[in-house]
Amino acid sequence: MSPDASPPTLAGPVLIIGCGLVGTSVGLALARVGAAVHLRDAQPEHARTAQMLGAGTTEPPESVSLVVVAVPPDFVAEVVAGALAEWPTAVVTDVASVKLPPLEALASAGTEGLERYVGSHPMAGSERSGPTAASETLFEGRAWAVTPHAAVADTALHQVRELARAVGATLVEMPPDEHDLAVARVSHLPQVMSVLTASRLHGGPADHLALAGQGLRDVTRIAASDPVLWRQILHANRLPLVELLRGVRDDLDELLDGIERGQVIEDVLGRGVAGTRLIPGKHGEESTPALTSVFVQVPDQPGELGRLFRDAGESGVNIEDLRIDHDLGRPVGVAEIAVRSERAEELTSALTERGWTTYL
Amino acid sequence: MSPDASPPTLAGPVLIIGCGLVGTSVGLALARVGAAVHLRDAQPEHARTAQMLGAGTTEPPESVSLVVVAVPPDFVAEVVAGALAEWPTAVVTDVASVKLPPLEALASAGTEGLERYVGSHPMAGSERSGPTAASETLFEGRAWAVTPHAAVADTALHQVRELARAVGATLVEMPPDEHDLAVARVSHLPQVMSVLTASRLHGGPADHLALAGQGLRDVTRIAASDPVLWRQILHANRLPLVELLRGVRDDLDELLDGIERGQVIEDVLGRGVAGTRLIPGKHGEESTPALTSVFVQVPDQPGELGRLFRDAGESGVNIEDLRIDHDLGRPVGVAEIAVRSERAEELTSALTERGWTTYL
Repeated sequence: MSPDASPPTLAGPVLIIGCGLVGTSVGLALARVGAAVHLRDAQPEHARTAQMLGAGTTEPPESVSLVVVAVPPDFVAEVVAGALAEWPTAVVTDVASVKLPPLEALASAGTEGLERYVGSHPMAGSERSGPTAASETLFEGRAWAVTPHAAVADTALHQVRELARAVGATLVEMPPDEHDLAVARVSHLPQVMSVLTASRLHGGPADHLALAGQGLRDVTRIAASDPVLWRQILHANRLPLVELLRGVRDDLDELLDGIERGQVIEDVLGRGVAGTRLIPGKHGEESTPALTSVFVQVPDQPGELGRLFRDAGESGVNIEDLRIDHDLGRPVGVAEIAVRSERAEELTSALTERGWTTYL
Repeated sequence: MSPDASPPTLAGPVLIIGCGLVGTSVGLALARVGAAVHLRDAQPEHARTAQMLGAGTTEPPESVSLVVVAVPPDFVAEVVAGALAEWPTAVVTDVASVKLPPLEALASAGTEGLERYVGSHPMAGSERSGPTAASETLFEGRAWAVTPHAAVADTALHQVRELARAVGATLVEMPPDEHDLAVARVSHLPQVMSVLTASRLHGGPADHLALAGQGLRDVTRIAASDPVLWRQILHANRLPLVELLRGVRDDLDELLDGIERGQVIEDVLGRGVAGTRLIPGKHGEESTPALTSVFVQVPDQPGELGRLFRDAGESGVNIEDLRIDHDLGRPVGVAEIAVRSERAEELTSALTERGWTTYL
């Protein structure tokens, strides 16, 4: 995960096998940085659509230095083995959601050239599928897991790291078994919970759904995803997933018992709040940025705080947190505005210019 | 739910009791349309913050025509009863998430003036709380449930309907018991599922969370909400909620059984997909708009479809759906672009101008 500021280098042509949402998006992102991309799909019309979108060419390559296998989980091991054999000097990666089972299948089959294979997994997708749902920016700022195994060659690992950088993703490296435990928790479990929530929308009067709000839409968005794909993912990662789901059932029983008895269930709700705080920032930030508080005197008059927000907004400095102190008996309040430390002076100047009294 | 194009009329001053997220947002939205708004909160600093934001004035009103009670669920009945007594000619509503229990409490206590009370519930909120999280646009395009009871006077009902219209919400009317069943399904169940998902983020290595993607963030967003508020909501609506949660437990057992046996679980996943399709459009649309397909010939060359998307995008007409037909053996594909029928001609003209061959 060490930052590397040099431009990514992808030597030679890339072959993408599988032109669905992820494969086509990889092609679009690579084409943008000038890589030579070739496209192949078991359904030729998908490859042609990807080509028409600008993700690369359906012309067969003469040579290949990197193969990206972007097929459904059930076919990954077979297609990776085929690619290693077809291109005996190329590095091969795949982008499937589960990493240990295909590696074990390849190893137990005695696949030759396994030192040229390393699995990877971009943590980006969509509830939509197919090439027309693809986007050249799908991976920007998203985590891209690369999962080295003991036998992988450094040169192969380097190529796949460069792939992740070239599409704008944030590189995260961990062993395949760790990866599968991690995605069971942060991806496969939420998928199941979203599905179970959406399933319960059946069975009530249709007009009840007129009360649907943004919370329901957010919780159920990913439940619209392709069931065939997800059956394969959940099956491939069933061992860690089942353990987590048993934990959910225990929590659910505890909650049901608490609600039925009219007992305090705040501890269950509180564990949920604490859980959301464990999720890192959206842009691959590894830790909370350093914040500085800017204090602003605010006349205790209607609309003054609104005016402060507008002025702060126009300064272009993002407000990370806010607190209001009312000093009882004084005609002025104090707003404490937390911003990233390196922007504090900029905010202070902008507010002072607009007539506010500020102090750090 | 009949549309009404006349401007909303809120006669006389409005008193908002409770200046948290929802109360303050009501004040901001009403202030925007010129209503006289007075603010009160058991914690006076909340009312002062709301005033500083421009949501109204903390000056006590001389007269009140509408009281909006925006306090936590446990206090609704008590505060509504107090408001009916304090303002003997005012209409009183509340904005709490559960509607039958406070009505029953008021009725069984023999509260005088109940014909001036009708409950309501805006389907809008945030995982953040307090007046500084408020927004004058919180209710725009959102459903606002109004829940008449048998004894309510027409004039009271009219006032509360006008309130919903004045803040830009879409009016939905249903009896209090129906409302509570509906929100158990579309709001309280998703809340619990979000909490249970976020709770499971504990217990794994912290670096696993580096793989968190947008799906996890969406599913767990509302789990960050105030546990004290949600304990009150879930407790107040426990009867329908418990029934739904038992159904979830059955579904979860079925899924666990299927995953452990390696059996097909696509039907469970498919029920989830179908469930998401039951949710109406974001802007209170009651039905799918009429669509027309525009067919466009696309040369089967790299980037042509991307160019078509850009040209279609620049036409300003929103693409509702898209399908590609590849006629094998011909050097041209056909893109079928579905748009709202009233915009089809506009898209056709724009594309023809840019050199595309189109037909309807």
